Amino acid sequence: MKKFVLVFQCRDQKGIVAKVSDFIFKNNGNIISLDQYSTHFKLGHLFMRVEFLLEGRSHGREELEKRFSGVASIFKADFRFYEADVKPRMGILVSRPGHCLSEILYLWKNKELDVEIPLIISNHAGHRGLARQYGVPFYFIPSDKKDRREKEILRLVKGSTDFLVLARYMLVFSKFFIKGYGKDIINIHHGFLPSFKGANPYQQALNSGVKVIGATSHFVNEKLDAGPIITQEVSRVSHKDLLGSLLLKGRNLENRALADALVAYVQHRVIRFKNKTVIF
Amino acid sequence: MKKFVLVFQCRDQKGIVAKVSDFIFKNNGNIISLDQYSTHFKLGHLFMRVEFLLEGRSHGREELEKRFSGVASIFKADFRFYEADVKPRMGILVSRPGHCLSEILYLWKNKELDVEIPLIISNHAGHRGLARQYGVPFYFIPSDKKDRREKEILRLVKGSTDFLVLARYMLVFSKFFIKGYGKDIINIHHGFLPSFKGANPYQQALNSGVKVIGATSHFVNEKLDAGPIITQEVSRVSHKDLLGSLLLKGRNLENRALADALVAYVQHRVIRFKNKTVIF
Amino acid sequence: MKKFVLVFQCRDQKGIVAKVSDFIFKNNGNIISLDQYSTHFKLGHLFMRVEFLLEGRSHGREELEKRFSGVASIFKADFRFYEADVKPRMGILVSRPGHCLSEILYLWKNKELDVEIPLIISNHAGHRGLARQYGVPFYFIPSDKKDRREKEILRLVKGSTDFLVLARYMLVFSKFFIKGYGKDIINIHHGFLPSFKGANPYQQALNSGVKVIGATSHFVNEKLDAGPIITQEVSRVSHKDLLGSLLLKGRNLENRALADALVAYVQHRVIRFKNKTVIF
Amino acid sequence: MKKFVLVFQCRDQKGIVAKVSDFIFKNNGNIISLDQYSTHFKLGHLFMRVEFLLEGRSHGREELEKRFSGVASIFKADFRFYEADVKPRMGILVSRPGHCLSEILYLWKNKELDVEIPLIISNHAGHRGLARQYGVPFYFIPSDKKDRREKEILRLVKGSTDFLVLARYMLVFSKFFIKGYGKDIINIHHGFLPSFKGANPYQQALNSGVKVIGATSHFVNEKLDAGPIITQEVSRVSHKDLLGSLLLKGRNLENRALADALVAYVQHRVIRFKNKTVIF
Repeated sequence: MKKFVLVFQCRDQKGIVAKVSDFIFKNNGNIISLDQYSTHFKLGHLFMRVEFLLEGRSHGREELEKRFSGVASIFKADFRFYEADVKPRMGILVSRPGHCLSEILYLWKNKELDVEIPLIISNHAGHRGLARQYGVPFYFIPSDKKDRREKEILRLVKGSTDFLVLARYMLVFSKFFIKGYGKDIINIHHGFLPSFKGANPYQQALNSGVKVIGATSHFVNEKLDAGPIITQEVSRVSHKDLLGSLLLKGRNLENRALADALVAYVQHRVIRFKNKTVIF
Repeated sequence: MKKFVLVFQCRDQKGIVAKVSDFIFKNNGNIISLDQYSTHFKLGHLFMRVEFLLEGRSHGREELEKRFSGVASIFKADFRFYEADVKPRMGILVSRPGHCLSEILYLWKNKELDVEIPLIISNHAGHRGLARQYGVPFYFIPSDKKDRREKEILRLVKGSTDFLVLARYMLVFSKFFIKGYGKDIINIHHGFLPSFKGANPYQQALNSGVKVIGATSHFVNEKLDAGPIITQEVSRVSHKDLLGSLLLKGRNLENRALADALVAYVQHRVIRFKNKTVIF
Repeated sequence: MKKFVLVFQCRDQKGIVAKVSDFIFKNNGNIISLDQYSTHFKLGHLFMRVEFLLEGRSHGREELEKRFSGVASIFKADFRFYEADVKPRMGILVSRPGHCLSEILYLWKNKELDVEIPLIISNHAGHRGLARQYGVPFYFIPSDKKDRREKEILRLVKGSTDFLVLARYMLVFSKFFIKGYGKDIINIHHGFLPSFKGANPYQQALNSGVKVIGATSHFVNEKLDAGPIITQEVSRVSHKDLLGSLLLKGRNLENRALADALVAYVQHRVIRFKNKTVIF
Repeated sequence: MKKFVLVFQCRDQKGIVAKVSDFIFKNNGNIISLDQYSTHFKLGHLFMRVEFLLEGRSHGREELEKRFSGVASIFKADFRFYEADVKPRMGILVSRPGHCLSEILYLWKNKELDVEIPLIISNHAGHRGLARQYGVPFYFIPSDKKDRREKEILRLVKGSTDFLVLARYMLVFSKFFIKGYGKDIINIHHGFLPSFKGANPYQQALNSGVKVIGATSHFVNEKLDAGPIITQEVSRVSHKDLLGSLLLKGRNLENRALADALVAYVQHRVIRFKNKTVIF
């Protein structure tokens, strides 16, 4: 028995669930869970995620995709099958603040984040010890605003990773990098987007006198801190909170927002659609 | 076009989603949304809720149930079809505290709670004005601990309602009443169950020094405040909170917990299973 | 015995608490509670709120202020004494959405919002019934974007109220009005400021794909939705939430944010300082 | 300049704040912040925390306490002065789950938890690496239900620590240990007390069908999981959450609840009173 996930989207139409579930049934599969959501019935866009088991001599992903292409073409659907036991390869980029890195590695070691981690890249050499402790290759690349070292980073991550996580990486990537990489990049922003984009969001929050702060994980696109939001976490603050205590509260928010986003992403529960996400 | 909801549960087996969605497809139906959950794959119990439209000359609920019985019998399933435009009849019982009653009537008037309200029964005559303002028949029945007037109440609600809501009704119903009524009864308890059952939960919370209080909506069964939980809402409190401010904060929690429970229930999103609920 | 509240602010200096509490002690007063906060020790600004009882033949507010002026002048402090049993007069302005109005009137009737309400002004005649039910004078003034009827409104509220609450009043007041009124105006904004200023904040939230929405109560100043924030409430949302369910969730947030702000304000717990607030 | 904290409690009476703040003023001190709370005016119990700076040639703690004893005796008060730069010595006990230990050590290294950590004691040898990494002496004592090794543990902690934290230590201490130690012991319980005391609280929560789970930090007393509560954190759960995801969500709650409790405790913001706490 082998577990698969099918992620599927198309214009909403009649009979989609019936056709898809029938396909799985006829291929000797058992649906474990099926999530489906339509932005607007018939006029909208439909998203579906199906987790299923194939019994007996099981097909591989490619064979399944070939067989399914007939169904997909009826609905002009985009789709992808994933084998649940194939772990995506996640590259980590991180600057000085190490809490998100710690959290991710802890989750990974505890099998709660089911990925391979081929490398950690940092412009802060101090994380080398932590990387070694977890047995992950570490690359110190002293990128900064003047020289973002994008080519060098791209060379390292391009072939070796399936997606990247910016676990408090303080430099903004250029279009060149984002296009060149061509796969998903997930960022954690330490502010409640769309408020407080860019640098020093906790200082911005402090200046504006808000009574609630937040952290946001999102996909990176070519606009600064404006890619599709995956998760947000919030916490109450008061006039007593100064920058220090905002940073402290915020750190916990960032850890949760990023961890939840990564766990959902790795389980193929996050679907991008225009500038938003559907999270099953 | 007519909208239906199918609620379905059975032992988890192979091909359920395929068979059910195929049935809808073949009856010229369009699935709007499908939620499905299994407590444990193959060994567990499966729950499904399907919202769909029937096009053309539409069948009624009974015709659908007859046609579907063949599918259901394969899986030994319990199921029920609901016509989305048939409003359930909700009876309200309420004692002195009127905030939940106000909230419910406000939601109802704003079409956010899609029910008929055939009657309000209270052992507090003061709610008569509010009932009249909303045009709902009001029955003052001065029940108390010595005489709960259950027969009288049962006679009023038995045939005229599809379910009851205890919107801060301070008396406990006997087995006699619960069995005699034989349909769902939803209660709002002003405490964070399973803590603080019974009388004066805010006083109990105060005495215990908790830093978070809650409210719980649940189905009534024969054990005191121990029926399946539908929703819970919580709020932080501190040493500064005395009984008065707990009551004030709690009122808001009760309103939210009860409103959310009723809205979900009326849309057939709440499924009871043993001592728990599945909320789609 | 008579209860007073002293609200006090000045440059932070040595001996302030000692001098102020000694003054109260020597005037035969008993401190019930004292809150004090300094933005930065010695370099900062100090805020203090003291609730106290005067025993025996009690002074009035004016006599106290006269006596205290000596202490205040040492520290170059702004201060104000309030008699706890003098209720501030709160004017309400409201457009079509009536939930905040309902909430306020309910709190007021239940003695949880300790004010007088000399009038309700609305550009929506439909609230007349509710106003009458609570026995509050109601003025229908059909203001709109073309004619905000500010002079007429100012004439009604100027002398008769101590502060105004905009309980979902959909027009923006001009500088002329704000200066002309010259007292505090508290607004509820149905968005998580500083995001989503201006019109249709829930639609803005929907478009931006946020996973948390909010409501903000704040003082009105001459910039749109940019006055000092008093309270903020937030709630999780998902891709399933459409405009309708955002409005429903938001209504509850608005009620809570506004109710908490008003209760704190009326108890003299809200201190404005530059573009922020200290909430004791 | 030297910073002190005074923690003070007594029967509520007239003139307390005046006398205490006057004492500080006359000793050439500057109040940085003063928190005061009374359970009930005049009939109640008053709690006060004053943070202040002494200028010039500064007294030590003992000299201050001697001078203050006259003021305290007027009010029959319990009080204690703390020098802010004297770090309390915190002993850590931990069983197999290591997340709270990690969190505490991380906070400590980042100077957000201002303590000395003389030792970590564990019945799980696997934490030795982490302890070494942070340079904290580690004692592996294989205590279990049959032999709790209390004498051995007591010998290690009695003189070397000012308080203990049970960072998921799975054994219950006897009266013998608690009395023998004679100082504060802070526990993190992975359930929302007073619900779900004792073993396997997440399993208990799962069985009861609650929709919100929690974690509680509290002082240890001689009753199981019934000492005064310091902090509680909560999180929503649904029917989809099984034991694994409850554990995952819970871990974050435990970290936050324990971290917040320890930070407040170390800053002398936590005052025990009967079976409750006042948190300034």
